[in-house]
Amino acid sequence: MMIGVDWGTSRLRAFLLDGDGAVRATRASDAGIVTLDGGGFDAALAPLLHDWPAGLTLLLCGMIGSRQGVVEAPYVACPAGLPDLARALVPVRIAGRDGMIVPGLSCAPPDVLRGEETLIAGAGLSDALACLPGSHAKWVRVAEGAVQGFRTYLTGELFAAVAQHTIVGRLMQPEDPLDWQDFFDQGVAAARGDRAAPTALLFGARAAVLLGRLPARGLRPYVSGVLIGAELAAEVPRGRVVLIGGGELVARYARAFTTAGIAHEFGPPDAAPAGLFRIAAAAGLLP
Amino acid sequence: MMIGVDWGTSRLRAFLLDGDGAVRATRASDAGIVTLDGGGFDAALAPLLHDWPAGLTLLLCGMIGSRQGVVEAPYVACPAGLPDLARALVPVRIAGRDGMIVPGLSCAPPDVLRGEETLIAGAGLSDALACLPGSHAKWVRVAEGAVQGFRTYLTGELFAAVAQHTIVGRLMQPEDPLDWQDFFDQGVAAARGDRAAPTALLFGARAAVLLGRLPARGLRPYVSGVLIGAELAAEVPRGRVVLIGGGELVARYARAFTTAGIAHEFGPPDAAPAGLFRIAAAAGLLP
Repeated sequence: MMIGVDWGTSRLRAFLLDGDGAVRATRASDAGIVTLDGGGFDAALAPLLHDWPAGLTLLLCGMIGSRQGVVEAPYVACPAGLPDLARALVPVRIAGRDGMIVPGLSCAPPDVLRGEETLIAGAGLSDALACLPGSHAKWVRVAEGAVQGFRTYLTGELFAAVAQHTIVGRLMQPEDPLDWQDFFDQGVAAARGDRAAPTALLFGARAAVLLGRLPARGLRPYVSGVLIGAELAAEVPRGRVVLIGGGELVARYARAFTTAGIAHEFGPPDAAPAGLFRIAAAAGLLP
Repeated sequence: MMIGVDWGTSRLRAFLLDGDGAVRATRASDAGIVTLDGGGFDAALAPLLHDWPAGLTLLLCGMIGSRQGVVEAPYVACPAGLPDLARALVPVRIAGRDGMIVPGLSCAPPDVLRGEETLIAGAGLSDALACLPGSHAKWVRVAEGAVQGFRTYLTGELFAAVAQHTIVGRLMQPEDPLDWQDFFDQGVAAARGDRAAPTALLFGARAAVLLGRLPARGLRPYVSGVLIGAELAAEVPRGRVVLIGGGELVARYARAFTTAGIAHEFGPPDAAPAGLFRIAAAAGLLP
């Protein structure tokens, strides 16, 4: 058995894993790194682990290893596979236990990730372009089992900023579950068009509403489509494309892939426990 | 003589113009359309005009003719020249005077402008690509003295949203007057690169700071360069390119043009009074 912890900006999850990596128990809290603001890590984690056996291997991944976390685990430069991660684990004393923290990855042109290295490990990819939707959507190139490089898009966070803090967002209405797809598809197509500029398409969407060419309920899914379509336009996905993650956002990306005619498959909706298990195994931390 | 009024979202300016269009007096207040929030137009304008002669032609342009203004002046579809604007003036009674409002323009793909049609008229362009920097930067194609079409970029407003409401902005430090140019140039170049994606470059800028590749004081000018560079990448300016406007922002665009090797010239820094005069003349409103 071992304990795996996925500790991100907004969420903390602890897994009790069997000797074969199967999840025996999961506990979660909303004590994300942003919430904690630099302290109280022991108090946040201890209640989740209190009745799990002492002495188990404890491996943590995510923003807990960032400058804002309990201890900084320096980024490992790409290309980086399981052995590279295993060699760079950083010891930590937390919640009364000895543990290790998984480092994030860096690459050139300058980019960083933290937490996704574990999801990639958990997905067990050998050669693929992995897309991980989110506030900061990651496109990760994996070859021969190692991450070769990646690119991060500010998609989710930028959508929120546009919706809440620009003149475009002021016209937004709730989307209609029956027809949001049409407007989303239009946004994806526009972003993939010749000489498309996302910053112009954002204003153009507002104009389209003012001119009666787009209903106000279509503005939100259209803008979402523009930002996701901009990823597709820049990545030009080909070969094996794997969508990693769960929930409504991944379904949206899958729709964008489909309408753009891009073949894709789905990775595991929650790859964190398997990733922590595989990294622990590679580091020789399992009995 | 006539009275011209440029009434935008954040500012109100009134001009007393001579028979040849020269500005005899200017008065301004910060009673922009956003500030007024749908009312108090008379009270905002009257004090600026109170001792100017009664009975003068009064022409207003800008957001005062929008849905949030005193009366909506419907957009005129491109192509549109002076005669088209002149035919579409909308009468208004305001501040105890009879006036006319200049309409905005619309085009396809859907886009709108309001106020810039007057600046274009004031610049006296016949054939050119005009760039008007701002919260919503406009690129306007003029041929044979008429606006053929245009495209709006959310550049300024998006910069503010990114700086104030995203993880990228959290690392921003004040820029250094001695070296911001270097980082700005890097941002412009990055945005004009092959398969560049502004949304990825924004996150990449944060990563570059975390990795020590970009100083924190370089983040703000770099992001500014990325967003302005994205305009250049999409517009591919050629032929006669005219920068219209004044102040530091126009200087920034000029720098981007220069480093990108794009020939350009400057239009009048304040084209509003001349534009109002020319439209009034085209409408036969001058004695």
